[in-house]
Amino acid sequence: MMTEFDLIQQFFTVKNDANIVASQDVIKSSVAESLIKGIGDDASVVRLPPNTELVTCTDTLVQGRHFFGDWESVDQLAYAIGYKSVAVNVSDIVAMGATPHSVLLALAMPKRLANETWLDEFAKGIHEACSEFGVVLIGGDTTQCDTLVITVTAQGWIERGKAVYRDGANVNEGIFVSGTVGDAGYALTHLDRDIGRQLAHRLHEPTPRIRLGQALANAPHRATAMQDVSDGLIQDLIHIAKQSGVRMQIELDKLPTSEPLNQIPIAERLPYQLNGGDDYELIFTLPKGADIQALQSQTDDTLITKIGNVIGTATDITTNNAKTDKPLIELVFEGKPVTPDDPYPFNTFPDLAGYQHF
Amino acid sequence: MMTEFDLIQQFFTVKNDANIVASQDVIKSSVAESLIKGIGDDASVVRLPPNTELVTCTDTLVQGRHFFGDWESVDQLAYAIGYKSVAVNVSDIVAMGATPHSVLLALAMPKRLANETWLDEFAKGIHEACSEFGVVLIGGDTTQCDTLVITVTAQGWIERGKAVYRDGANVNEGIFVSGTVGDAGYALTHLDRDIGRQLAHRLHEPTPRIRLGQALANAPHRATAMQDVSDGLIQDLIHIAKQSGVRMQIELDKLPTSEPLNQIPIAERLPYQLNGGDDYELIFTLPKGADIQALQSQTDDTLITKIGNVIGTATDITTNNAKTDKPLIELVFEGKPVTPDDPYPFNTFPDLAGYQHF
Repeated sequence: MMTEFDLIQQFFTVKNDANIVASQDVIKSSVAESLIKGIGDDASVVRLPPNTELVTCTDTLVQGRHFFGDWESVDQLAYAIGYKSVAVNVSDIVAMGATPHSVLLALAMPKRLANETWLDEFAKGIHEACSEFGVVLIGGDTTQCDTLVITVTAQGWIERGKAVYRDGANVNEGIFVSGTVGDAGYALTHLDRDIGRQLAHRLHEPTPRIRLGQALANAPHRATAMQDVSDGLIQDLIHIAKQSGVRMQIELDKLPTSEPLNQIPIAERLPYQLNGGDDYELIFTLPKGADIQALQSQTDDTLITKIGNVIGTATDITTNNAKTDKPLIELVFEGKPVTPDDPYPFNTFPDLAGYQHF
Repeated sequence: MMTEFDLIQQFFTVKNDANIVASQDVIKSSVAESLIKGIGDDASVVRLPPNTELVTCTDTLVQGRHFFGDWESVDQLAYAIGYKSVAVNVSDIVAMGATPHSVLLALAMPKRLANETWLDEFAKGIHEACSEFGVVLIGGDTTQCDTLVITVTAQGWIERGKAVYRDGANVNEGIFVSGTVGDAGYALTHLDRDIGRQLAHRLHEPTPRIRLGQALANAPHRATAMQDVSDGLIQDLIHIAKQSGVRMQIELDKLPTSEPLNQIPIAERLPYQLNGGDDYELIFTLPKGADIQALQSQTDDTLITKIGNVIGTATDITTNNAKTDKPLIELVFEGKPVTPDDPYPFNTFPDLAGYQHF
């Protein structure tokens, strides 16, 4: 019988003289220096750099909800589930402008998966993502459960006072998004098609925009509001609009589209681009005159696209909540407003307000 | 339809002008001061006091594994599950000697529980525990899942270099435990009996030993090794023995026993006391001559009992692992060694090496 401790020992830790730390071949020295105690005690201990603030988030992936299909297969999917559970949390740290440092893994899993083959692939995905994003696995918990439920908590830090929130967008600012949108959402429902398979890596191994997030926390490119796209572009823009008390106009013909997705008619791809979640791109607002080319070249040429503007205020002072008779997000296509009376797919937007967890 | 955002909004947050923070009536001012951003953005932001280190842990409670019976009832159990999921994590922070500060809640739950009645009781348990232990709910995630799975991550801090690990126990030191042991384990399997019901609060609302943990991190009472009892007294002592590379002798007649449990014959209660988990008491080692009375009076008269001694080393230098031909833990009853050839319950100990998660 494999105990919880054997499991943790075998797949998630290696030993060195001073501490037990995650089994990454190379932990960046800055990360290693700040790690006082990793896996193996009641809790982990981390030393933050002076003059920083701690940034923390937690996110869960559930079998049948966040991953489907042949999810118990040991080939690509066990690996992908591990990789993604780290990536989506790192993305939340990045969306604050912070530097990710470490993750904790709470693994509730069916006994049938507690075998070497599955765990080995899953652990490889975890470790590869950690290595890719420069974070270290510092703690966790393993429990038996009928359903596979993976909860990762990520922590990082940022210079004091520099975190970028959702509530700072102002009228007349531009609205931007990194990379391309709609890929993961399309892949999720079309893994049986060629284009879906071409986009599968966007669903299974999302890329947190670490350098871009950090650049957007600092002059000269500091964003006024930022978050990552996890629930769907429109729904996530609504979060910024609500918390900032502003209204936005989004130009549908400007949405950045990947080559595979561009082969699909616009009427078919737009719903995925607007409402498909899981892109883990950054959306952010910048004052007029922001030098996007300089920002791109500072961040390894990460594609950055202006997709709209903040067009008005929408604040109800009494509740500190966005309140307006007009919609918080106005959609425009080739210069013309889009309404629910327009033909498909435009008429579907009001019902496609993003992924609902309940 | 209730969305994830509605849920979070309704049960886990209230608003103030600057931030959205957890709905506790009173957040201790020291906690509030250090909380820069709570629930409502991509991640939370916390400012640690200078010269401290961050302490973090995560722990999962699973339906059918950590709570049983009429667990969907809205009376005591929904409340208890919420309370306990916070308490067990705070206990891990405490077992490092640290000061707990905040928790994140990842809630994977069946749709049928996403109703006001159940959530209200559950949230009350979360908030009451937070208030009791002086921590604040700063983030979380809600997902639909067939099984109820609750993962809490706790964070706190401790003066730089002061964390108490499991690896510092030395030969000739005394072994101590706080409170009483066996109560939660007995209650778990005997909620249908009077004594089980009398002890139910020990199972459902464990008491992290916050003041004791902090006292044990500092002179004059600094412990050499410490952890909390979650998997069972013997199994958790083995963790300290292994990591410290020592052997221990435990005196069975010294185990601190609650009044209700003391009504039961020793043969019946000992297995729960040695192997029943969920006590969340602190076990720790102290040098000879430690002033236990002073320690008790410094910590609101928390009961502290010496249950044995560190009697030898057991280190294999090459692997940094405990290695010995003798057992890491020797049991003694009324001065005589206990062996597997002894009558019940002593002969059952070797098979009762604590709760196995797989």
